[in-house]
Amino acid sequence: MIVKVKEPLPEEYDFFKEGQILYTYLHLAADRVQAEALLAKKVKAVAYETITDSNGHLPCLTPMSEIAGRLAAQEGAKYLEKPFGGRGVLLGGVPGVKRGNVVIIGGGIVGMNACKMVVGLGANVTILDIAADRLAYYDDIFGSQVTTLYSNRTNILNAIKEADLVIGAVLIPGAAAPKLVLKDDLKLMKKASVIVDVAIDQGGCFETSHATYHDDPTYVVNDVVHYCVANMPGAVSLTSTLALTSNTLRYGLDIANKGLETALKDDKNIRNGLNVYEGKCTNQAVAKSLGIEYSDIEF
Amino acid sequence: MIVKVKEPLPEEYDFFKEGQILYTYLHLAADRVQAEALLAKKVKAVAYETITDSNGHLPCLTPMSEIAGRLAAQEGAKYLEKPFGGRGVLLGGVPGVKRGNVVIIGGGIVGMNACKMVVGLGANVTILDIAADRLAYYDDIFGSQVTTLYSNRTNILNAIKEADLVIGAVLIPGAAAPKLVLKDDLKLMKKASVIVDVAIDQGGCFETSHATYHDDPTYVVNDVVHYCVANMPGAVSLTSTLALTSNTLRYGLDIANKGLETALKDDKNIRNGLNVYEGKCTNQAVAKSLGIEYSDIEF
Amino acid sequence: MIVKVKEPLPEEYDFFKEGQILYTYLHLAADRVQAEALLAKKVKAVAYETITDSNGHLPCLTPMSEIAGRLAAQEGAKYLEKPFGGRGVLLGGVPGVKRGNVVIIGGGIVGMNACKMVVGLGANVTILDIAADRLAYYDDIFGSQVTTLYSNRTNILNAIKEADLVIGAVLIPGAAAPKLVLKDDLKLMKKASVIVDVAIDQGGCFETSHATYHDDPTYVVNDVVHYCVANMPGAVSLTSTLALTSNTLRYGLDIANKGLETALKDDKNIRNGLNVYEGKCTNQAVAKSLGIEYSDIEF
Amino acid sequence: MIVKVKEPLPEEYDFFKEGQILYTYLHLAADRVQAEALLAKKVKAVAYETITDSNGHLPCLTPMSEIAGRLAAQEGAKYLEKPFGGRGVLLGGVPGVKRGNVVIIGGGIVGMNACKMVVGLGANVTILDIAADRLAYYDDIFGSQVTTLYSNRTNILNAIKEADLVIGAVLIPGAAAPKLVLKDDLKLMKKASVIVDVAIDQGGCFETSHATYHDDPTYVVNDVVHYCVANMPGAVSLTSTLALTSNTLRYGLDIANKGLETALKDDKNIRNGLNVYEGKCTNQAVAKSLGIEYSDIEF
Amino acid sequence: MIVKVKEPLPEEYDFFKEGQILYTYLHLAADRVQAEALLAKKVKAVAYETITDSNGHLPCLTPMSEIAGRLAAQEGAKYLEKPFGGRGVLLGGVPGVKRGNVVIIGGGIVGMNACKMVVGLGANVTILDIAADRLAYYDDIFGSQVTTLYSNRTNILNAIKEADLVIGAVLIPGAAAPKLVLKDDLKLMKKASVIVDVAIDQGGCFETSHATYHDDPTYVVNDVVHYCVANMPGAVSLTSTLALTSNTLRYGLDIANKGLETALKDDKNIRNGLNVYEGKCTNQAVAKSLGIEYSDIEF
Amino acid sequence: MIVKVKEPLPEEYDFFKEGQILYTYLHLAADRVQAEALLAKKVKAVAYETITDSNGHLPCLTPMSEIAGRLAAQEGAKYLEKPFGGRGVLLGGVPGVKRGNVVIIGGGIVGMNACKMVVGLGANVTILDIAADRLAYYDDIFGSQVTTLYSNRTNILNAIKEADLVIGAVLIPGAAAPKLVLKDDLKLMKKASVIVDVAIDQGGCFETSHATYHDDPTYVVNDVVHYCVANMPGAVSLTSTLALTSNTLRYGLDIANKGLETALKDDKNIRNGLNVYEGKCTNQAVAKSLGIEYSDIEF
Repeated sequence: MIVKVKEPLPEEYDFFKEGQILYTYLHLAADRVQAEALLAKKVKAVAYETITDSNGHLPCLTPMSEIAGRLAAQEGAKYLEKPFGGRGVLLGGVPGVKRGNVVIIGGGIVGMNACKMVVGLGANVTILDIAADRLAYYDDIFGSQVTTLYSNRTNILNAIKEADLVIGAVLIPGAAAPKLVLKDDLKLMKKASVIVDVAIDQGGCFETSHATYHDDPTYVVNDVVHYCVANMPGAVSLTSTLALTSNTLRYGLDIANKGLETALKDDKNIRNGLNVYEGKCTNQAVAKSLGIEYSDIEF
Repeated sequence: MIVKVKEPLPEEYDFFKEGQILYTYLHLAADRVQAEALLAKKVKAVAYETITDSNGHLPCLTPMSEIAGRLAAQEGAKYLEKPFGGRGVLLGGVPGVKRGNVVIIGGGIVGMNACKMVVGLGANVTILDIAADRLAYYDDIFGSQVTTLYSNRTNILNAIKEADLVIGAVLIPGAAAPKLVLKDDLKLMKKASVIVDVAIDQGGCFETSHATYHDDPTYVVNDVVHYCVANMPGAVSLTSTLALTSNTLRYGLDIANKGLETALKDDKNIRNGLNVYEGKCTNQAVAKSLGIEYSDIEF
Repeated sequence: MIVKVKEPLPEEYDFFKEGQILYTYLHLAADRVQAEALLAKKVKAVAYETITDSNGHLPCLTPMSEIAGRLAAQEGAKYLEKPFGGRGVLLGGVPGVKRGNVVIIGGGIVGMNACKMVVGLGANVTILDIAADRLAYYDDIFGSQVTTLYSNRTNILNAIKEADLVIGAVLIPGAAAPKLVLKDDLKLMKKASVIVDVAIDQGGCFETSHATYHDDPTYVVNDVVHYCVANMPGAVSLTSTLALTSNTLRYGLDIANKGLETALKDDKNIRNGLNVYEGKCTNQAVAKSLGIEYSDIEF
Repeated sequence: MIVKVKEPLPEEYDFFKEGQILYTYLHLAADRVQAEALLAKKVKAVAYETITDSNGHLPCLTPMSEIAGRLAAQEGAKYLEKPFGGRGVLLGGVPGVKRGNVVIIGGGIVGMNACKMVVGLGANVTILDIAADRLAYYDDIFGSQVTTLYSNRTNILNAIKEADLVIGAVLIPGAAAPKLVLKDDLKLMKKASVIVDVAIDQGGCFETSHATYHDDPTYVVNDVVHYCVANMPGAVSLTSTLALTSNTLRYGLDIANKGLETALKDDKNIRNGLNVYEGKCTNQAVAKSLGIEYSDIEF
Repeated sequence: MIVKVKEPLPEEYDFFKEGQILYTYLHLAADRVQAEALLAKKVKAVAYETITDSNGHLPCLTPMSEIAGRLAAQEGAKYLEKPFGGRGVLLGGVPGVKRGNVVIIGGGIVGMNACKMVVGLGANVTILDIAADRLAYYDDIFGSQVTTLYSNRTNILNAIKEADLVIGAVLIPGAAAPKLVLKDDLKLMKKASVIVDVAIDQGGCFETSHATYHDDPTYVVNDVVHYCVANMPGAVSLTSTLALTSNTLRYGLDIANKGLETALKDDKNIRNGLNVYEGKCTNQAVAKSLGIEYSDIEF
Repeated sequence: MIVKVKEPLPEEYDFFKEGQILYTYLHLAADRVQAEALLAKKVKAVAYETITDSNGHLPCLTPMSEIAGRLAAQEGAKYLEKPFGGRGVLLGGVPGVKRGNVVIIGGGIVGMNACKMVVGLGANVTILDIAADRLAYYDDIFGSQVTTLYSNRTNILNAIKEADLVIGAVLIPGAAAPKLVLKDDLKLMKKASVIVDVAIDQGGCFETSHATYHDDPTYVVNDVVHYCVANMPGAVSLTSTLALTSNTLRYGLDIANKGLETALKDDKNIRNGLNVYEGKCTNQAVAKSLGIEYSDIEF
């Protein structure tokens, strides 16, 4: 049984052998070559990203969203500094001087965690979401520390006009993020304001976003600084590793202790994690995405 | 010994008699007729408003400022309602809709108490004061629930432009309030926004303020609703009476129990309250204001 | 397609014509004349009040409850003022003087929003509800700022005895509100205390409630001031309009962009809003209430 | 140089010798025998309890007051339990059931620390003090979690009537505590309610208080449980030792490093701690209290 | 109809008679003798502990968990005192001295209520749970006042090493609590630290726990003080009675007003409470546990 | 009259001319060449850094300390990221994973502002100060969100051992900062932890600190990342400019409107700002520091 964090590298495919258990992030839907290698070598592959918990959530993905949301605040604050290309605004202001304006588009896990941090830094925060229930929960938790707005085009445009920092936090699981801010909309924004697009792994929710890396994280379009690092949690690897392994460990130990087949039989959530088994694709979404046959194996 | 709340009415002056102790609000500096009556009748008059406490504060005036500050918020909220002439804005908004903007000019006791209430009602609150220390204390107590700004003409004008409600809370003890918002400035304000001028007892800090009464509390100038009731605490008479008597009682009981002269000798704070004694004016500020002789009687 | 806020007036019925889309509040269950006019003219009528969201809530009704709850606090505070007939109590008291006592009966959306505001005004707040889970959530959000009590007759009577302000917030969707406080119970209450009955649209939860209007909002029974304005959100029309249209707009745009029939087919929530279509009643509750035939049209 | 925590025991007096530095709590004003021994033996005695800091406070006494205040809450909660003689009331109640009522008389350091803890335990808290400024600070810090009242006989009697727990926290430095609750007043209180008298070291502020020890901490008078342990901080000796030595250490190190005489010359605060020097009493209050001669030695 | 709090005593079984309604806590699954008596005498027995509410929760058990959780904090604080065998640590420390460390294992109702109280007492709090959603909710409610950790053996052992107080709050309804801290693990803990095992009614979640009573609540194993009182809510009987009867009363009144059979027919939640009827066992879990026949009577 | 932000550059000295008013930061005590130029040219020089306010504070320095304190948190968070050389720790952790540990040495204006931000980012925060009063104020404002410790060598060493981030905030106005953490102490710290030394303008409070610039802000000593940028507020120039000019403007306008001499006569605070006048040094500290004659000119 091999336990990893990231998907295997192509040069590692040759080490695959039949019956081997591979337990890691796989992201096969967008990686036909790897999928075919796993199928051909009859690896038993369990992917972190499709394991579920008893509420149907994805326990190995959620902590990464929490980390990315919290990091979004600290990156936004940093790249607003003048020497990093920003407007030279301190998010919390100081007594006697206005707070910076932060707009968060999307009130899910990423948005909630970003919101806690920018509120903590003392900013003037506006959050937009389409779900009235979710906005009411923000009102319960944050009171008047946050302004909540229904997410629609008018409200988004009005909000970004005043913003020093805009955090894109609209994530639709398993789908491309909608483009909510277009290239021309950036002209409404203040010069040297900052965008952090946390949805970049799913294509981003700003039209002008493209993925960057930690060693050159930002670029400028229409005078707006863009921070679009694809693997944000990598910046805080110690915290990320603990968050990930705390969740993957319990399922991994079950597999190791009981044997894979028993674990699959006992626990529907691990079964949801199984992607490849004895040369067959056992995850419906992956099969569909790759246009290959799906096998509904029962244990 | 006569204990009252408000100053004696002219028709009561005839009942004054020599040696009588009068213990009430007097406000003699602006009331020569009453002062002369008290002097002529040789009343021993102790005024609530000049009694001090061990910190040099005015314990019989402070609670009235606290009440007026708190009321300012509830009056402002009410007169913003459409049927009362206001813009039809709910200060706290609701989830999905913007909060109302409140601007408080002056961060003393009135401002602090008004601030607590408008923050409590969920408004977006800006407070202006000239003292950096005081603004830092607001930041300690309210965190990001309040925006603090240095009070200067630029900041005031920018603030009132966005305001739904402006509360005037600039009080300089014993002096006329400065006129910080002029008639022409009102043109910058939103139509049907509301002003509450808590400084009205000292002339008001809006040029367009003039005192009103509880039975017709508001009027409109340049499309801005003005609430300028002179005796605001009268609206909550039960609370005001408790607040006042809790403070006046302890000094009053001392006077009654010990006799006035012993009380004056024992307690400098009561001595500060003495305004007229045996036909002489014993309060320096009152004497100066009325242009009469001051007697520094010691007990 | 006609978009309105309130239901059409009788004099407008003549303008109805076949195939026209009418999108507004209708409240047909209690308005046979209008229902018959819409059926006869074969109007396609979508009612705000029966549109649902993905959680089964009523997104075009909720914000009105939030507004009414928040307003209840500010009306209660205002009508407790002496010149408005109340006891002359300031809800938050001041340092050294007791806070006013507020009792909220019902902990749903109206109760939660009223609660936030009276807590914000510094009152001593008691909330009664029958659901233990809901009371525990209040304890999570408000901590010791609120006393929670199981709603039963003993607790209600004990609570109103001490109250300065009682807010009735018991709403059972689509049913008459239960009468939880009877006329005789008012004798237990303090003289000149205040009742705000937010349930008045559904008959009120005080036996002595009857609907009033913004121009004469209160009346007195058994020495208790009653505020029972039927259309409370109208007082803050600007906020109410934004709250309403933010929610109605998205469904309205769908209807306009896709055509009504496609919108009805695509979105079950809009289908739930359809009340009249091609001369047939398509809402079960309305049909039942009016004793007419229900047509379960599918799109 | 001898460093202790408590004053020397009589059997230790024989070990005193001339020129020795003694650095500990002494409390000589009430201990003539010890004072005479120190004078006779020409000990150089520096007492923790009269050392000052740059604000004129007593840094070696304050932490003991903070600890006693915090403990008062936890003792009160405990002795309200039925098996310990109390009413069987949980201070914070639970959702649906009323919170317990706690009354704190005195808003100084003891009162503030007791208040934080009973608020933390979810009680319904009332604090009484005579200083309006202090009550306003409580309002700033605790908001509506605490009711503040002016301390006078009427308010005290009304408050204790409703109380489950009354904490006596009235301490006048260097004087006997005033008796604010008399024996007969206890009849107003609820059966099996609890009193914690933190002022017991200065005689207590309840007429019925007398000092107890940790091994038998409570007794009952008029159906009211009294907790009057004289050395409360001893119950949490680990915390108390750290709190005490953190403060005494810095002065002690100065004395050890520089020599006593230089330390006395350099630092007025240590000079204030000197009680006996070369056979003379060097603290004015101690001298006065014992009726012996005071020597104003300068260094 | 007989209404009690605790189950009938054996000496009361003789008073049972056919057709009698018994409404109280029964806990028959572990009490065969009582069950047989009720069956033989054909009592109609409704048990508090199996009544449900509309969310499927157990409304007559929840308040007891809330009370036990809150008490756990106050017992832990008390038995940490030196004279009671503890380390002599004050949970909240004082300014300048470290706070005590509290570890709560289990974040359900007991854990949440214990957490509120130890946070309120100013401790440094760590809570462990296996559900990521639940930990996120703690983060929403408590922010940085609480450290949340995934519950696994590594984290538990690391946490208890630093702890002054460990609260066991792991309750699996209807099952024995898992033993999460073993006897040997106690050697990792600090000398004279304290354990409060709220799960003791279900066997406890510490291997070394055994039930104690209020008159001798603690014992020591491996230098760790154990508080394992089985009926914790009995310590605050006044609060517990109100909490219990507020919930049992509404169902009891229904039974009394409508007659048992109608109440059973109208309300599925009361039906869930029925354990014995006309000589038959009508609760599936009880029947299974006692190995007797289950009768699914419908009303 | 010339108004600048920073002191004049040497190449600008030639433009000085007699009678000119120079109003800017000067820092003459450490800049003999500039002082001599100003004296020789008989410039009238008012320095921001010695202007006082009515409380004796330095209103043109305080906002820069507030900004630096707030920035310290965001720099510390950023340089803890792995790609920037740090440990890869997210200060707030995420639910289920420990928070980062932040230690702030010094609880003045810098420390308070840093503290607000790191608390806001969700860190586990410890603050050390020598003043018990100040620590108690932190306890009032932050409650259990912050651990307060007396600042002494033992506590500092224990604290930095556990720290991910240490913020040096010990500033003694007009003196070199004390070296509280020595080079060897760094060996106690975790690998790749981060130091931010806000006291760098006064030499720093870490032995290993030396000033850096925004374009290369960090360096590593003993595996600890050092951030020691000398002009931190320059990073947020927009906020800093507003904070500075809001304070300098009011004095500057007075000088411009009244003429310098009248302004000096009217306002003692401006007089305190005067450093050079008609060829004489008019600030005592500057004169002493440069060893030149001081002239106590009165206006």
